[in-house]
Amino acid sequence: MTRTARFITVEGLEGAGKTTVLNAIEAQLRASGVDLITTREPGGTSLGEDIRELLLGHKHDGMADDTELLLMFAARAEHLHKVIRPALDRGQWVLCDRFTDATYAYQGGGRGIDMARIETLERFVQGTLRPDHTFLLDLPVKQGLDRAAGRSEPDRFEKQREAFFDAARATYRARAQAEPGRFRIIDASRDLNGVLAQLQASVSALLDEELGA
Amino acid sequence: MTRTARFITVEGLEGAGKTTVLNAIEAQLRASGVDLITTREPGGTSLGEDIRELLLGHKHDGMADDTELLLMFAARAEHLHKVIRPALDRGQWVLCDRFTDATYAYQGGGRGIDMARIETLERFVQGTLRPDHTFLLDLPVKQGLDRAAGRSEPDRFEKQREAFFDAARATYRARAQAEPGRFRIIDASRDLNGVLAQLQASVSALLDEELGA
Repeated sequence: MTRTARFITVEGLEGAGKTTVLNAIEAQLRASGVDLITTREPGGTSLGEDIRELLLGHKHDGMADDTELLLMFAARAEHLHKVIRPALDRGQWVLCDRFTDATYAYQGGGRGIDMARIETLERFVQGTLRPDHTFLLDLPVKQGLDRAAGRSEPDRFEKQREAFFDAARATYRARAQAEPGRFRIIDASRDLNGVLAQLQASVSALLDEELGA
Repeated sequence: MTRTARFITVEGLEGAGKTTVLNAIEAQLRASGVDLITTREPGGTSLGEDIRELLLGHKHDGMADDTELLLMFAARAEHLHKVIRPALDRGQWVLCDRFTDATYAYQGGGRGIDMARIETLERFVQGTLRPDHTFLLDLPVKQGLDRAAGRSEPDRFEKQREAFFDAARATYRARAQAEPGRFRIIDASRDLNGVLAQLQASVSALLDEELGA
């Protein structure tokens, strides 16, 4: 593999502080001279944003599991084709707010969709492409929901019950355990300074690994 | 298989006269006492219509092949789950304006998307469900385009070049040859009375086969 640009994702439940963490990672990478783009899922393209609307809005409550999964991966296909692969091909790193791990966590763990069906579409859309590094912001579900509660109108996913998020968290943690080389777990239950200190150390280690000490 | 209700699709290029034919089939089936619903692809559900907008509109010209295919099958999954399977389960026949054969013809033949990729999603979404009977309205591409030209603003697909439709027609015909038990080819190049006469004979034969002479 000749690609040197890296594909980095940030994953975590609602209220884990993903936005703050994404900004901090971006700043630290740029300060180290890394040329990167930032993007998000579902969305990341004009068409993807329209699909995100269909997925997150209240209009289509009760869509079939297969429909939800296919829409997720349709947005992902467009995102990969238009944004992620071209950036990596140009040598730019990609920092992405959620990716396929979120599909396993929310649709697989949370909604109980067969993981094998998710794998089928993952292979279909991504081929062999996987994130090189994934930061998982982990915290107790109740704490995340309380933090998120201060926010605007809850969307379809946020309104779902705590058991849903428990299952999503368990799936994230199981995936992190299964792929320790890819995942870096950040304890997001700590206060902001505590989270940012862990993160900085973790990003520094990643940079040492990728760019040499 | 205990299902007695039948799933019938009508396929054909632009200008083949699908709407007229669908109405004629519906009338003949109802006159024979068949309880049926009529529906169409892509679309057939509220979410499916929104997806159809994304697919047929001009806004997202140049979407990736995978994206187009996944959106097609997302609409199809919803359509199957909400409309087609429930009707068949209730014992109602389903008469559908286009189905997966159109994906093979337009996306596979016309746009050159790998047929094996279409098959993967067909299996993913439909399992073993296939139409029981398919009427293919066949006519020379030029004749169909001339007929269609009198219509409203051409959509993204209609604007594409004649070679595209030639390939789509060839794919339809190849599929009909490969599955002579399912397909009934109607010569749509004839005048309206000629088409309707063929159709009536063909539907009568189908009814004899399905309901007994």
